[in-house]
Amino acid sequence: MTKEYTVAIVGATGAVGEQLCDLLPQAEIPVKDVKLLASARSAGKILPVGDKTYEVEELTEDSFEGVDIAIFSAGGALSEKFVPAAVKAGAVAIDNTSAFRMDPDTPLVVPEVNPEALKDHKGLIANPNCSTIQMVAALKPIHDAYGLKRVIASTYQAVSGAGAEAIEETLAQSKAIVEGKEVPEAEVLPCAGDDKHYQMAFNVLPQIDKFQDNHYTFEEMKMTNETKKIMGLKDLPVSTTCVRVPVLRAHSESVYIEIGENNVTIEAIQDILRQAPGIVVEDDIQNQVYPQAINAEGKKETFVGRIRKDLDVPNGFHLWIVSDNLWKGAALNSVQIAEEMIKQDLI
Amino acid sequence: MTKEYTVAIVGATGAVGEQLCDLLPQAEIPVKDVKLLASARSAGKILPVGDKTYEVEELTEDSFEGVDIAIFSAGGALSEKFVPAAVKAGAVAIDNTSAFRMDPDTPLVVPEVNPEALKDHKGLIANPNCSTIQMVAALKPIHDAYGLKRVIASTYQAVSGAGAEAIEETLAQSKAIVEGKEVPEAEVLPCAGDDKHYQMAFNVLPQIDKFQDNHYTFEEMKMTNETKKIMGLKDLPVSTTCVRVPVLRAHSESVYIEIGENNVTIEAIQDILRQAPGIVVEDDIQNQVYPQAINAEGKKETFVGRIRKDLDVPNGFHLWIVSDNLWKGAALNSVQIAEEMIKQDLI
Repeated sequence: MTKEYTVAIVGATGAVGEQLCDLLPQAEIPVKDVKLLASARSAGKILPVGDKTYEVEELTEDSFEGVDIAIFSAGGALSEKFVPAAVKAGAVAIDNTSAFRMDPDTPLVVPEVNPEALKDHKGLIANPNCSTIQMVAALKPIHDAYGLKRVIASTYQAVSGAGAEAIEETLAQSKAIVEGKEVPEAEVLPCAGDDKHYQMAFNVLPQIDKFQDNHYTFEEMKMTNETKKIMGLKDLPVSTTCVRVPVLRAHSESVYIEIGENNVTIEAIQDILRQAPGIVVEDDIQNQVYPQAINAEGKKETFVGRIRKDLDVPNGFHLWIVSDNLWKGAALNSVQIAEEMIKQDLI
Repeated sequence: MTKEYTVAIVGATGAVGEQLCDLLPQAEIPVKDVKLLASARSAGKILPVGDKTYEVEELTEDSFEGVDIAIFSAGGALSEKFVPAAVKAGAVAIDNTSAFRMDPDTPLVVPEVNPEALKDHKGLIANPNCSTIQMVAALKPIHDAYGLKRVIASTYQAVSGAGAEAIEETLAQSKAIVEGKEVPEAEVLPCAGDDKHYQMAFNVLPQIDKFQDNHYTFEEMKMTNETKKIMGLKDLPVSTTCVRVPVLRAHSESVYIEIGENNVTIEAIQDILRQAPGIVVEDDIQNQVYPQAINAEGKKETFVGRIRKDLDVPNGFHLWIVSDNLWKGAALNSVQIAEEMIKQDLI
């Protein structure tokens, strides 16, 4: 008899939680039961998951009895508070927040990149940051072929990465501008927890998450540190500039890499990426084919194009990497972690 | 008696031409007369320049009689056709298009960066590409202090760089989306002269101008080649990724540089830029102060912030450079070229 799993979605009413409800019925996870958990404010809401509906329950320390897999996406503070309760109750927790990602005892996993890290789990797997996932998914096959020596990335990140309120705020500002009305004051972006808020519509904001002492933002340091951990390359040079753009969904990234060989062709990189799991190469410049944010919305793959050799450095390449930040960048990767754990018989 | 000049604006009804009409009355150019030139379609329109109005005349080979300074921003084909007529008639032509920029006999000038190039002019000065101007304005003072060894840039360019029609198209698409209506089909962006057109609203397009054989776009090669020419550094490694974002005005750039010294501090770079002409440092992360596109609109300066040391390379720095693409990136730089030529007694 196939094993069946009770799956809890913590933060079921948020931007990522909604996507988890959509993706779970398509997943290769035999589901016995679903528990939707959220704050008291959302308790009682009825949400569909596949062809059934479930009532949202208030998240408490007692919510995890009988739960096999608990996927958290309700913010770092709530993960810190409730992940231990889920693990104690015997569930495997898959955490979408940054709370435990750099904890040396917690595997940080993109299933196509480092599935072997799952076997050492102690009840908790961390899901990497959205902007990290799509970058490592594209860079891992190149690293396997040629060795990766350096990464410099500039991102073009969608507002949905800052949650449902950031989407609403951006749309409201955009509507005011196109209708010639006064722009409503910003209250969410660039970062809900920071002091100042700025207009996102028809603007570009070079701040995602709070600033750190080294002048990088926390988002930038997430990309740097998580990339090294996931790829198992603690000395890999990675520096990033993380930027929010007025796009609703799907992150785009301009990524410069240096590899371990000098005479690699564009075609060789394309071929390697074409064979890589979860990657789609969209790189036909004759026909103006390249990845675009709006085309990646609601797609499970990571799209790579604009593959070029650096004009001066013989081992340098430039790539354009686009993926749906709510799917591969969050909800889908969490589901794929659970699928991979089931496949490896770890749950 | 102060010398006075008759100034012709070729392409007076376009996105840059309009800005030239606004900026000319503020310029340090003693104006005797103004001639507004455009296609037959626009001839007869009455436009204000300062407190006077002028009738737009049809551009012909005979338009330049008595003209001292002719500023061209009507597209490369028209510059190729009519710049020789202007020069023959004795005018100094300042050309905003890419037609003559890489011609070895034509100075390519940003007045703060290479004013000395003006003295060799043969009647024609080329105004660089918008994305190049703001980058070299910020990099020149750093080069003078430490030597510049390498540049990698990813841009976030406003749609006004593609003209008034691109602005209209982006606004119309945005309006349809926020009102839940069908998005009108794209007809202009990413590039009016190319085959396929894509939605710009709430999207990111990694194509500006047409693709070249080396897989870079023409815009990217303009940034590379023009930077080398303006800075007089023909062997400087410069690779760029040029990207259009749904912003109406002002280009943002994520720029990585390597310099000739290893122990330079963030504060030293800030100090050098604070003293540089035309540069404003906006880099106070404690107070979330950094350059933003909407704040640079209608400003004459180039704004630099997010100045960080690369995390691994001791001579590497990351910068965020923002400027109004229609002003410093086009109209203003042209006016400043004329001002500098008058100052140097070259007209």
